[in-house]
Amino acid sequence: MPPYLSFLYLKLNNRNQDMHAERAALAAFFPIVDWLKNYRREDISDDVFAGVITAILLVPQGIAYALLAGLPPQLGLYASILPPIVYALLGTSRTLSVGPVSVAAIMIASALTAPEISALGNPIQSGLILSAEIGAIMLAMAMLRMGGLVNFISHPVLAGFTSGAALLIIVNQLPQVFGVKMPTCALDLGCYAQAVGSFSAPTLAISLGSLALLIFFGSPLTRLLKKLRVNLSAITAISKCGPLLTVILSTLAVSYADFGGNPVAIVGPLPSGFPSPHFTSAHLETWRLLLPYAGFIGLISYVESVAIAKVTANLRGEKIAPNQELIALGSANLTAFLFGGMPVAGGFSRTMVNFSAGARTQMAMIIAATLLGLSVIFLSASFANIPKAALAAIILVAIFRLVRIKHILHTWRYDGGDGMAELATLLGVLVFGIEQGITLGIILTIASHLRKTSQPHIAVVGRVPDTEHFRNIKRHSVETWHHLLLVRIDESITFANVSYIEDYLAGELKRQPNTRHIVLILSAVNDIDATALDALELFNQGLQAAGKTLNLSEAQDKVMDKLEKTDFFEQLQPGKVFARTEDAVKALG
Amino acid sequence: MPPYLSFLYLKLNNRNQDMHAERAALAAFFPIVDWLKNYRREDISDDVFAGVITAILLVPQGIAYALLAGLPPQLGLYASILPPIVYALLGTSRTLSVGPVSVAAIMIASALTAPEISALGNPIQSGLILSAEIGAIMLAMAMLRMGGLVNFISHPVLAGFTSGAALLIIVNQLPQVFGVKMPTCALDLGCYAQAVGSFSAPTLAISLGSLALLIFFGSPLTRLLKKLRVNLSAITAISKCGPLLTVILSTLAVSYADFGGNPVAIVGPLPSGFPSPHFTSAHLETWRLLLPYAGFIGLISYVESVAIAKVTANLRGEKIAPNQELIALGSANLTAFLFGGMPVAGGFSRTMVNFSAGARTQMAMIIAATLLGLSVIFLSASFANIPKAALAAIILVAIFRLVRIKHILHTWRYDGGDGMAELATLLGVLVFGIEQGITLGIILTIASHLRKTSQPHIAVVGRVPDTEHFRNIKRHSVETWHHLLLVRIDESITFANVSYIEDYLAGELKRQPNTRHIVLILSAVNDIDATALDALELFNQGLQAAGKTLNLSEAQDKVMDKLEKTDFFEQLQPGKVFARTEDAVKALG
Repeated sequence: MPPYLSFLYLKLNNRNQDMHAERAALAAFFPIVDWLKNYRREDISDDVFAGVITAILLVPQGIAYALLAGLPPQLGLYASILPPIVYALLGTSRTLSVGPVSVAAIMIASALTAPEISALGNPIQSGLILSAEIGAIMLAMAMLRMGGLVNFISHPVLAGFTSGAALLIIVNQLPQVFGVKMPTCALDLGCYAQAVGSFSAPTLAISLGSLALLIFFGSPLTRLLKKLRVNLSAITAISKCGPLLTVILSTLAVSYADFGGNPVAIVGPLPSGFPSPHFTSAHLETWRLLLPYAGFIGLISYVESVAIAKVTANLRGEKIAPNQELIALGSANLTAFLFGGMPVAGGFSRTMVNFSAGARTQMAMIIAATLLGLSVIFLSASFANIPKAALAAIILVAIFRLVRIKHILHTWRYDGGDGMAELATLLGVLVFGIEQGITLGIILTIASHLRKTSQPHIAVVGRVPDTEHFRNIKRHSVETWHHLLLVRIDESITFANVSYIEDYLAGELKRQPNTRHIVLILSAVNDIDATALDALELFNQGLQAAGKTLNLSEAQDKVMDKLEKTDFFEQLQPGKVFARTEDAVKALG
Repeated sequence: MPPYLSFLYLKLNNRNQDMHAERAALAAFFPIVDWLKNYRREDISDDVFAGVITAILLVPQGIAYALLAGLPPQLGLYASILPPIVYALLGTSRTLSVGPVSVAAIMIASALTAPEISALGNPIQSGLILSAEIGAIMLAMAMLRMGGLVNFISHPVLAGFTSGAALLIIVNQLPQVFGVKMPTCALDLGCYAQAVGSFSAPTLAISLGSLALLIFFGSPLTRLLKKLRVNLSAITAISKCGPLLTVILSTLAVSYADFGGNPVAIVGPLPSGFPSPHFTSAHLETWRLLLPYAGFIGLISYVESVAIAKVTANLRGEKIAPNQELIALGSANLTAFLFGGMPVAGGFSRTMVNFSAGARTQMAMIIAATLLGLSVIFLSASFANIPKAALAAIILVAIFRLVRIKHILHTWRYDGGDGMAELATLLGVLVFGIEQGITLGIILTIASHLRKTSQPHIAVVGRVPDTEHFRNIKRHSVETWHHLLLVRIDESITFANVSYIEDYLAGELKRQPNTRHIVLILSAVNDIDATALDALELFNQGLQAAGKTLNLSEAQDKVMDKLEKTDFFEQLQPGKVFARTEDAVKALG
């Protein structure tokens, strides 16, 4: 029974309850119970410190990723308050920071600008419906115990996709950096040059200043502070303040400097106060149109979140439960929907900031989200003047390290097939679009995997003299019969390998053209799927047309049960089904 | 060496050539050589008969499927002349009839009405580019020996897809039957009723008359003629004339009857004469936009063609070569592109007509295509008055049997997972669209397959006393060591199973918390892919954080070669790599 069901079950049957079992089920569904129980005094100071540091990053990131997704800034801020708190209650990672993330944001942007979605003319509604659908999809996957789906997206595909999405984000941000509109130039390079030529000087100045400040707050400042022997937690605190300082300085510049009538694009006014719960209604058709996008965004968000959670959990010897993560992330997205937030996931840069600032538990994220909530209530008026160029610079610096072209070479050197999948995914994302690129990568990976694993072990067997044992004719000296071909198949027969099996049998028949009866020994066959059954029926028709028969022996009970529901045994006639291979030899040999 | 390469190779090196080998290579690339060599006099009469019968079907089908695809009628006719002749030279099926087919036509219609494609405003150009791209994709797949890809689309997915596409075709044809425009009513039923209410009486009369005639020419007429003891080939000839008669009678009705100013939609004028070769040029962007559609249509066309070819080949004990089929179908599509035809594939109804009319070889299709070519040259003026309603009736009768809702129940009873995949594909095609439905079905099938096969055999082993053999501790009484965990993994480690392996190892570590060293025995591991390597690195970090080491033993040379290209061995330190498990026990035990 899944933990959430067993918890409900125990709640409903609380007569004679086993307190211990209830507490275990409660802890499985609310992992927070587990770590709160062992919470120590020194954890508090670590978590408060990490929470404050992370909160400083969350304001600019929340606004920036909402704008990147093509949504108003408040959707990013609202997504940074309650959803991480819901994740803190339900998630199994102690350091994952949940909120708006860059890769999901560019996927949302791609969905919102798709012709059929932009025709709806209501991006806020579409964004909220995406949150709801992503949440519902994740919870449905959890109910179906599909947490293992994370395994079907191989790391090379994920790496190629991430690099491709990051490049798309960079291209998407360049107009903000130059203060121009996104040009529609297709392959005309001169047109791009012209677009860049019409740049806004004050905007570019803010962009370059912001970039310089952010880069300086990276390793140069850390190195400098280390040389000055500043203590480590102070270094961490100072170096994480780059984005906040960038936002403050650039906002001051825009508010007080005079750019001579050359305006710099700013975030603009936000609704004031905290969002109240709200249920967005829309036509069924709107929900249907958005569903495929929600599926892709949800899948990628889940895979990335679990990957990031695993990295940090491994470093601390903790454990991530994939299905519980689906429940936590799904609930966080539904919360985002109810409180006016964009879709959320576990973010790479925000989790790394939280982790490296020393967060011990999700208490750090609860503190960060609370601080953010307070700032939304009391400071939202001052967010209006933040220049978009500064936010673009923050995105560029955060995203730049995700473009890992060299990683493709690295993968290729290790494994050619994986390298090809990584490159194809990257190119697919850039040329065809995000969904198509991921699809291509997954197809290539799984196709090469299936090709490798679609050749089951098959043996032509004969009888060990004076026994009832049948063994491979290549390895043992055994009796065989002129008109009888005994073939043992050592794996389940499925769509992936039935062609190989057919070809194998056809090859054996060609080598032994006098064969009148084939007996398939199915002792090791656990299953025959619908495709394999169709293929066997067709193969049998071919044999009958050539005057030969197909027979089965030693089929397992569950395989017999399945076949008995069909007319396969009638089709086989005059071919027969034998319980023992020895019987087949007696009847046909 | 693939047959086409070996053929070229031999052509280029024709000194000292082995005549026999050249002829074999020639026959592999041009299977026509093979059957022409053994062509007998009685084959000629069979093939001429079947060719004439098939030609009678091809005119209405060619026009009807072009209109279904949203293309002018001549694109269907041109696709029915040279492409089947090219297939006849190169294909390995002796009875497959290649030309415009219904399922590909509805996919083309879906591509041409997609917002980004219809914005191009040139459906003829888009249709021809699809032919070119489908041809190029098939040839590329042949070069990469990807004929086996056909195995990754399971029969339930194909059946669900076919039923869904057939339902879409039926819905698409209903407006033609009633003589109304396709209404845009979404979920408003009253709106549909209103659309049907405005039907054109003469059009509906032609539709119903055509349907009645076509249904009568099916089994009722065959039964009647059998009762009258007409000989069998005459019955075949007569019963296949239904579509032609429908077209002739309905055309006469439209040409000579007076419908009192209520016009019946007709095909309209066609260009006269035979198409000359023509190379359509277009912007690179147009080619790029159409490529994903071409990929899907090409994949489905190939899978359906091979499936149909296999059915007829099996009944005659012949053999289909998947890669050669890719070459033949790809060349046929490139021919369609050059001579102004829509994309082609092997069609179900046309192949069944050809086969049941007694075709022995592709000579039948060469004759049918030649007759069709003559009719295009001399009769195209008379095609203009064919009423669209009669063509819609022909499509409906041909397509109706492809809707097999009961088949889903049938599959479900046999195999629940397969039944679910079939239903999901059908619903996916109807709700989300053709490409999305297929994708969903393939994902479900492969996901359930991967889940079944992603649990490799793993054993904790110990040493058989006084030997250097290591055996499963569950089956043998063996020596073990307190701080040492020896684990043998019996399959390649890949993205599909590495999570399972990790979980297994974590479970063992939990049961034996005193373990200080884990040794993975890799004797049966043929490969470690990039995802698995990443996961092992992360697992090792976790072990190191807990003060434990990861070690390897008995790795195969090729696995060692791959790992040596990375820094994995450095990461393992102080964990080590041992040639023999015995060495590991000596060092760590």
